[in-house]
Amino acid sequence: MTLPNRDSVSAAHRLIEGDIRRTPVMSLPGLGVLKLEHTQLSGSFKARGAFHCLRAAGAGAAGVIAASGGNHGAAVAAAAQSLGVTAEIFVPAISAQAKQALIRSFGARLVVGGAAYDEAREAAERRAAETGALTIHAYDQPEVIAGQGTAAREWEEQSPGLSHLLIAVGGGGLIGGFAAWHAESGPTLIAVEPEGCPTLAEALQAGRPVPAPVGGVAADSLGARQVGALMFPLVARLHAAGRLQSILVPDAAIREAQRRLWAEARLLVEPGGASALAALLSGRWMPPEDARPGILLCGGNTDPASLAA
Amino acid sequence: MTLPNRDSVSAAHRLIEGDIRRTPVMSLPGLGVLKLEHTQLSGSFKARGAFHCLRAAGAGAAGVIAASGGNHGAAVAAAAQSLGVTAEIFVPAISAQAKQALIRSFGARLVVGGAAYDEAREAAERRAAETGALTIHAYDQPEVIAGQGTAAREWEEQSPGLSHLLIAVGGGGLIGGFAAWHAESGPTLIAVEPEGCPTLAEALQAGRPVPAPVGGVAADSLGARQVGALMFPLVARLHAAGRLQSILVPDAAIREAQRRLWAEARLLVEPGGASALAALLSGRWMPPEDARPGILLCGGNTDPASLAA
Repeated sequence: MTLPNRDSVSAAHRLIEGDIRRTPVMSLPGLGVLKLEHTQLSGSFKARGAFHCLRAAGAGAAGVIAASGGNHGAAVAAAAQSLGVTAEIFVPAISAQAKQALIRSFGARLVVGGAAYDEAREAAERRAAETGALTIHAYDQPEVIAGQGTAAREWEEQSPGLSHLLIAVGGGGLIGGFAAWHAESGPTLIAVEPEGCPTLAEALQAGRPVPAPVGGVAADSLGARQVGALMFPLVARLHAAGRLQSILVPDAAIREAQRRLWAEARLLVEPGGASALAALLSGRWMPPEDARPGILLCGGNTDPASLAA
Repeated sequence: MTLPNRDSVSAAHRLIEGDIRRTPVMSLPGLGVLKLEHTQLSGSFKARGAFHCLRAAGAGAAGVIAASGGNHGAAVAAAAQSLGVTAEIFVPAISAQAKQALIRSFGARLVVGGAAYDEAREAAERRAAETGALTIHAYDQPEVIAGQGTAAREWEEQSPGLSHLLIAVGGGGLIGGFAAWHAESGPTLIAVEPEGCPTLAEALQAGRPVPAPVGGVAADSLGARQVGALMFPLVARLHAAGRLQSILVPDAAIREAQRRLWAEARLLVEPGGASALAALLSGRWMPPEDARPGILLCGGNTDPASLAA
């Protein structure tokens, strides 16, 4: 199978440019160029991959099914609503009420069941096998990676000449899309994970995707059990070439990045959305002299009161 | 005295472009083009006028003084800190603790005194007369109006061809700057005020600035007692020419606009910052067919928890 590449990202862009938002960028002196992807439809970048799957694969009368208690579920629900497709989202019982409400707000049928994510996913797969619905994986699917890669393409157009891009990593769909777009040349990718969810760091060490712990303040959005099989060769290749670095950040730095974004620019993002900035603020990643870093704010699906507290 | 005009706005832009942020714009389908001016340094457009006064008039060893319990005080404090100038901000005892903390966060000396704004202003003027400090008025000063007008100049460059610009009005420095920039041609200005603070609506009816009630959810940022003497001829002339409309919105529409900005785009603004959008959402202003409206989100200095509640 062909891995997602620059051509597949361009093709995805053509398919979904009328569906998604071109999210704004802004410069913050002393930090870098922020891309406000948390203002994307559904509150995260995941709308890009969801629209791309629906546009590329289509969904019949049985609609679309996804398993996710978080941003992926909201994105699939939002994309399905926008395209007039029926959506069923399977969420584990532990998922946050606020995220469940967000998924419902896009008109999706919410199926709550199972204690953990894996049980929700199995229930979703059983249901899809029965009904023939299209399923969309949260990250490990070529159309998803190519869709997320449209954020890299768009940003390159908006902010040419950035030297480093700081990108948060969960299951790796987003960094996989960036690696596909920038495979041959372009900025160095700084792949940022919370210390509590080091899926990519452990995969790079093992030489393959391996199960890793899931915990900490950003587990809600970055807490995949392991990175996807499809993204791994793309990312490992850039890593071997010295064009991708893997960085871990502590939870306190993530909270501090959230606080700074609000204090300095009235931007309110979720912990996962602040993790990339945390790498810079905490010094876990030190920009080389003359660096022009770009920082992706990838999600904003949090309760505003959580910041106040 | 010459009123602020296109030339003075251009001159202001040249003076302050290295100081202020070029705030981003984004399209929200079905609504229009938002300008995220709430992400400006200090959390509102008022940094533009404050920097312009400091750059144009300079401040000696006595520094700068302003009276304001809100966005103007924060803006003067932020601009002074950035330029290495001492700032004293006089705030009435009733001003919000959060705003006082914001002003202090920029290193300004905070002088709390007097029950209401007028007493703080008088104390500030007495102090400035003693020390020789530069004073910056919250809206009724040519450099302030020209500085705020740089938001109009910048937006025109970012989003050419908008047909209507929705702008919230308090004392009128911002709409005055827009009227100066767009005096001869350009978009129609929609001047939006809360029903509880109808200073411009009453001034246009009276034919001159007159005292008006101050109340409602946005009084904190839009609650001037009357519009400025300098902005009035600029705005009245456009109004007479049919190129500016005055619109009042109820508090409930302002709250709903805040809620919608968060729900649809993870943007968190203060009530005054949501008022312009409220005119559109509530139908108080009805866009003509083929309109391409622009909506300025002018401030974000609110407690995130206030939105959650």
